[in-house]
Amino acid sequence: MSILVVGSVAFDSVETPFGKAEDVLGGSATYFSTSASYFTDVKLVAVVGEDFPEEHITGLKEKGIDLAGLKKVPGKTFRWKGRYDYDLNQAHTLETHLNVFSAFNPEVPESYKDSPFVFLANIDPELQMKVLEQVKRPKLIACDTMNFWIEGKPDALRKLLKGVDLFVINEGEAREFSGQASLVKAAKEILACGPKTLIIKRGEYGALMFNGGSMFSAPAYPLEEIFDPTGAGDSFAGGLMGYLANTGDLSEDNIRKAIIFGSVMASFNVEAFSLNRLKTLTLPEIKARYSEFKRLTHFEDI
Amino acid sequence: MSILVVGSVAFDSVETPFGKAEDVLGGSATYFSTSASYFTDVKLVAVVGEDFPEEHITGLKEKGIDLAGLKKVPGKTFRWKGRYDYDLNQAHTLETHLNVFSAFNPEVPESYKDSPFVFLANIDPELQMKVLEQVKRPKLIACDTMNFWIEGKPDALRKLLKGVDLFVINEGEAREFSGQASLVKAAKEILACGPKTLIIKRGEYGALMFNGGSMFSAPAYPLEEIFDPTGAGDSFAGGLMGYLANTGDLSEDNIRKAIIFGSVMASFNVEAFSLNRLKTLTLPEIKARYSEFKRLTHFEDI
Repeated sequence: MSILVVGSVAFDSVETPFGKAEDVLGGSATYFSTSASYFTDVKLVAVVGEDFPEEHITGLKEKGIDLAGLKKVPGKTFRWKGRYDYDLNQAHTLETHLNVFSAFNPEVPESYKDSPFVFLANIDPELQMKVLEQVKRPKLIACDTMNFWIEGKPDALRKLLKGVDLFVINEGEAREFSGQASLVKAAKEILACGPKTLIIKRGEYGALMFNGGSMFSAPAYPLEEIFDPTGAGDSFAGGLMGYLANTGDLSEDNIRKAIIFGSVMASFNVEAFSLNRLKTLTLPEIKARYSEFKRLTHFEDI
Repeated sequence: MSILVVGSVAFDSVETPFGKAEDVLGGSATYFSTSASYFTDVKLVAVVGEDFPEEHITGLKEKGIDLAGLKKVPGKTFRWKGRYDYDLNQAHTLETHLNVFSAFNPEVPESYKDSPFVFLANIDPELQMKVLEQVKRPKLIACDTMNFWIEGKPDALRKLLKGVDLFVINEGEAREFSGQASLVKAAKEILACGPKTLIIKRGEYGALMFNGGSMFSAPAYPLEEIFDPTGAGDSFAGGLMGYLANTGDLSEDNIRKAIIFGSVMASFNVEAFSLNRLKTLTLPEIKARYSEFKRLTHFEDI
């Protein structure tokens, strides 16, 4: 089954203790769709400026990503500049130039409207809502957000969440949204707002899922070198949603497997700047790392 | 098989966002031995002052802990005062009064010397070494340390590690000891110093084991309320060593199970101040939480 994703396509300039990259391809929708493309068909809604080069369009198309919803408009593409120190869980934003993204008004092409899976990457919750208004009732709606919207548009976000099945946010955001230090309490409050399932991303510590009364803890893969954490969360969501859409199975057992596939994709993504590692993967590599996650977490029953 | 533990027995005064406790029983050897007592016989080496009340002695004896090595000497018992804020991973020390602990010179009673398992809790590495000089070659020697010794006595610590089989430290200490931000690299450097197995404690994020080329990631149990993290690391070590000593099996599969038992004991310990929860456990409760860890981490093969 196919996934509709709406989010950003951007140029990133990133510095980490291990190197730097300038004006490389980035953006939540880019990372998400590249990651999900290994599992299923992806239909992308985003906006870029006239400076967006044909080679990136070609690259995304080569991953089988449907770009009917990618608009090229007058002006410049969204640019983000950030730095990571040794604590790679924490991005320090140096510059944000929204450019054409500031007037982004997502229009879902007719051919996308019956997508059974929808992922609303981190954008203004009012725009996320506009997307939901355009699609026919999908099988699963998932969304991400960030502290900027939790603080700036809490009412729009809460309204949106009533229609969301799966909410994916990071640990600090879960605490901020709920006002609870305990993630178990935070999860209860968030699930009471609408979503059936909450996945809390914890960077190098993995992810926690809350689904009804059930909890699932997935580690991140301990890597010798993490070159660039940019896009890890969206690569995670891409693997997660990609596997769910591929199987069409929303049972908890399958969501758990999907979280591991998400963790697999995130672990590859951070091994290189931009999408350099993510875009060159093979299915055997993905399956091999899934098996490594199995070995990493295995312990016997008593 | 029995475990010899050397460490501190102390009075703690602790404040957390959820309450406070004054002059309650604490200390690394106390937490360790109470935790391990559910699995095997424990022989304790420590020192207390004349102010140490008979009720605590009785309490430890009731857990079956051998106190032939607990010396009562003139002076006051070691006192620690600390505070935790909402980030319960981080203790803020307010006061430390070493008192009789400042002249602690561990003497291993004759009846302890053939203990097959030895745990050197966090004390001066020179004293840890003195303990090793007194015991007959045990089956497994494990030790803990802290940033104070990593910075203050790095040579003594490195010398000690040559004779240690299992090293248990926290994440920040692993990074500080090795000078490596990546835990995978840190582990390689630490294992090259002597230990066959390294377990890195990550507080609410669980634990990572490195054993030869193999890695194991265990979560912490997500709790609704964490009242007091004091002693979590030593309770963890107690469950870990207790299970290893109980089974006498040092295979990697068994070390993985032991790490889960350690995590189980730590999860109970933080549910109340001092040893209030830890000392009242039952084996069925311990086994039930082990099974909850299994459910928490389970995902299917592909």
